[in-house]
Amino acid sequence: MKLTIEQASQLAVAALCRHGLPRDHARQVTDHLIDSALCGHEFSSLPRVLAIVRELRTKASAPSPIQVVREDGCFAHIDGGDNIGYVVSVVAVDKAIEIARRHGVAVVTAANTWFSGRCAYYVERAARAGFVALHTTNTTARVAPFCGAERIMGTNPFALAFPCAPDPVVIDIGTSAIAWGEVVLAQARGQPLPADVAVDALGNMTRDPQAALDGAFMPWGAQRGSALSIAVQLLGILAGSAPVVAGTGGYGLFFVVFDPDRIAPGGGFPAKAAEFRHIVTASRALPGHARMRMPGDGSQSHRQKSLSAGVITVDDKVYAHLVDLTR
Amino acid sequence: MKLTIEQASQLAVAALCRHGLPRDHARQVTDHLIDSALCGHEFSSLPRVLAIVRELRTKASAPSPIQVVREDGCFAHIDGGDNIGYVVSVVAVDKAIEIARRHGVAVVTAANTWFSGRCAYYVERAARAGFVALHTTNTTARVAPFCGAERIMGTNPFALAFPCAPDPVVIDIGTSAIAWGEVVLAQARGQPLPADVAVDALGNMTRDPQAALDGAFMPWGAQRGSALSIAVQLLGILAGSAPVVAGTGGYGLFFVVFDPDRIAPGGGFPAKAAEFRHIVTASRALPGHARMRMPGDGSQSHRQKSLSAGVITVDDKVYAHLVDLTR
Repeated sequence: MKLTIEQASQLAVAALCRHGLPRDHARQVTDHLIDSALCGHEFSSLPRVLAIVRELRTKASAPSPIQVVREDGCFAHIDGGDNIGYVVSVVAVDKAIEIARRHGVAVVTAANTWFSGRCAYYVERAARAGFVALHTTNTTARVAPFCGAERIMGTNPFALAFPCAPDPVVIDIGTSAIAWGEVVLAQARGQPLPADVAVDALGNMTRDPQAALDGAFMPWGAQRGSALSIAVQLLGILAGSAPVVAGTGGYGLFFVVFDPDRIAPGGGFPAKAAEFRHIVTASRALPGHARMRMPGDGSQSHRQKSLSAGVITVDDKVYAHLVDLTR
Repeated sequence: MKLTIEQASQLAVAALCRHGLPRDHARQVTDHLIDSALCGHEFSSLPRVLAIVRELRTKASAPSPIQVVREDGCFAHIDGGDNIGYVVSVVAVDKAIEIARRHGVAVVTAANTWFSGRCAYYVERAARAGFVALHTTNTTARVAPFCGAERIMGTNPFALAFPCAPDPVVIDIGTSAIAWGEVVLAQARGQPLPADVAVDALGNMTRDPQAALDGAFMPWGAQRGSALSIAVQLLGILAGSAPVVAGTGGYGLFFVVFDPDRIAPGGGFPAKAAEFRHIVTASRALPGHARMRMPGDGSQSHRQKSLSAGVITVDDKVYAHLVDLTR
């Protein structure tokens, strides 16, 4: 069904508040989820409220306040206090932007937090403020290293954004062969997984979602993709995560944010990036392919169209479930 | 044939000096090439002297001195003066290490340079000094973006290293489906390329090396790998490269180096990374696969064995060609 942005927002905020999120946190999470819907990433949108509520119900104690526990020159570390990553990540990236305004570059880490949504959201926020941003987070262990059969790494996204006219270039790469959300969705729908994306607990290839959750997902991109996933895991460990994250929580968030003007004074970088964008988008596509795009362009154009329509699409079942959760 | 490290070094230095490299530059390039041989990367080793000499012969004028033209807090920019990248990259990473010792983090760029060898060499240097390092360089345009048919990006390597006991974790990922060196080697040997790694100038898939050089290589890793390549290209542009590098030269080198102790005070990171390394290497492999490794382990163990043997292997034809070049 179709909901106006306002209707969808009220519904998500109500469901999240009803299950213990403070109103300001619920609003921030909702802004992120609505933006995912606007950008066309339906699974990262309102259905996530269901997973968040499931997680909130398991929490034995209330979270502590989010605190910048250490700040030292270009560095800051944030204790997430077991608050949701959607909120902790905004605190972290905003701290990184503040430090980068002062020193030109910031390295900010955050730990003691869980679910943080699309990494693209945070690096785009920095890029729209004029900064280049790199962001990674390790997550619950679900992925085996290349040639491995045991789940050790998370699905470990890796994101980068660059200021560019008219919109930033936004790169957000998961490093697993299949996303956790896709596996859960396949399970809910009773569908098999694609071939070669997961093994069962004995290390044999499986297309059964539950067997994959009990076993391990394969890394994306063979040896090279696995190496990237390992890098994200090490950055997570540096940020305060355990080496292997058994449950939901204890993720390690890592941000580097820097001012391109300090490298190329004069403020010319966004125009140069736009020149490169033009070269790519004006280049010839392979026979049979549509026109060329830059990373993030699909999300940006979907967002523009959805914003002018003023509505987002929500699965009927998800909607019914959300309404239940507000009661 | 087998050469002692000393014999191989003398040969490479003599050939490089004979064709105009200053002796100190020739020694630095040779140290890098010998290390590539020790690590088992034969193509990145002595055969590279032939390509370097070919390039030196095209140079109309002598290079200018390598200069740190701007240094500002955590930032520095280096004008490579059209000197070879193997030397410029060492200057850049050493400057980054020096700045990171002072400020905890460094962002260093370099431009006006060419061939720079294995990115692993520079990030490992930083990791052995106790720093986490990220390094990218864009190169001569040979690679099309995902779904594209025109060469726009270089083979654009992306490297990361982490201090870890006993050896650093070293990640060095090319972002093209095939390396330039592999295409040149296939051409020299009259062999076809693997399927699906390149298109000809008309955008049709080709296995002919010359047609691939006239057309475009495909990016590695489809959409995600292409996005990484675009990120490396944008970082190169930020470092002072042209948007598209038509010839050999004008590459943009990018380094971020930071001190893990400023994030996790107490010096514990290398031990935590070692704990993670142990978890990975002790984990079960997929049926039919050998034991598990961390990125860079293959190079490290090859280097140890070669160093104790004290010899490296050089192709007979390459050896004869190198001897010719010293005359």
